[in-house]
Amino acid sequence: MTQNQECPLCRSATENVLWRGERARVISVDDSAYPGYTRVIWHDHIAEMTDLPTAHRDELMHIVWQVERALRTCLGPDKVNLAQFGNMVPHLHWHIIPRWRADSHFPEAIWAPRPSRSDTQIAAWSSQKAALLTRLPGYHKALAAALEQSAP
Amino acid sequence: MTQNQECPLCRSATENVLWRGERARVISVDDSAYPGYTRVIWHDHIAEMTDLPTAHRDELMHIVWQVERALRTCLGPDKVNLAQFGNMVPHLHWHIIPRWRADSHFPEAIWAPRPSRSDTQIAAWSSQKAALLTRLPGYHKALAAALEQSAP
Repeated sequence: MTQNQECPLCRSATENVLWRGERARVISVDDSAYPGYTRVIWHDHIAEMTDLPTAHRDELMHIVWQVERALRTCLGPDKVNLAQFGNMVPHLHWHIIPRWRADSHFPEAIWAPRPSRSDTQIAAWSSQKAALLTRLPGYHKALAAALEQSAP
Repeated sequence: MTQNQECPLCRSATENVLWRGERARVISVDDSAYPGYTRVIWHDHIAEMTDLPTAHRDELMHIVWQVERALRTCLGPDKVNLAQFGNMVPHLHWHIIPRWRADSHFPEAIWAPRPSRSDTQIAAWSSQKAALLTRLPGYHKALAAALEQSAP
């Protein structure tokens, strides 16, 4: 396995792993602002999608689609955001972020400055978020089962 | 074809189209801050990747990888950023953004607030950007040829 001692994604000590496959793992991103935020991390220290052979690239995207599908089924977001940046950590990882119209950044990207919100809007999102948090264990269970079933 | 009269990506009047296929098109995003910024837009008005049948999803990603490959070959970025959000316009489109260590947002996402830069850094990026802009026609030509050759 290609690893880099300096890379935090090669070490992966404190991750909340939902599923671990032969070549990739899926973790829950414990960001209280974004219930359901999930990351797919390739095990090898590889920077770009086009550095992967086709079969591995397809395998990685297949996992991303499984995450998107489970998120939609279990949490019913208004939109799903997908991103692969790696500017800070050039080790392939995909962000899969369920978004809701009421969330703290919508319709901006979650990396953008927060749009202003009224107290009523903040309270409404807080209450919606609390309800979503109760559904996370069900999502995590359904996702792990789907990945286990479809693993190569 | 599934279209929505209210959707700017269904209308597509002012795009700089580099390649148009049966189900998707590739456009140059004329953002002077990001030379080489490219977008892949699915023709049909569809919101999420998992709304597409598998063959179409694979076809769309195949185009994204072609863009990434041509960008890397022709412009040699330090990193490639990929994103599919659709929060404002829920019509499938991928952002493929070549990034350089010297660019105005690195290592942040381009949607994040700009990190502070010294005058020397701003001048260096300005000069690097000018050199990159001269290579865009070559990139656009190589990309169109690659897509034409591999079109289904």
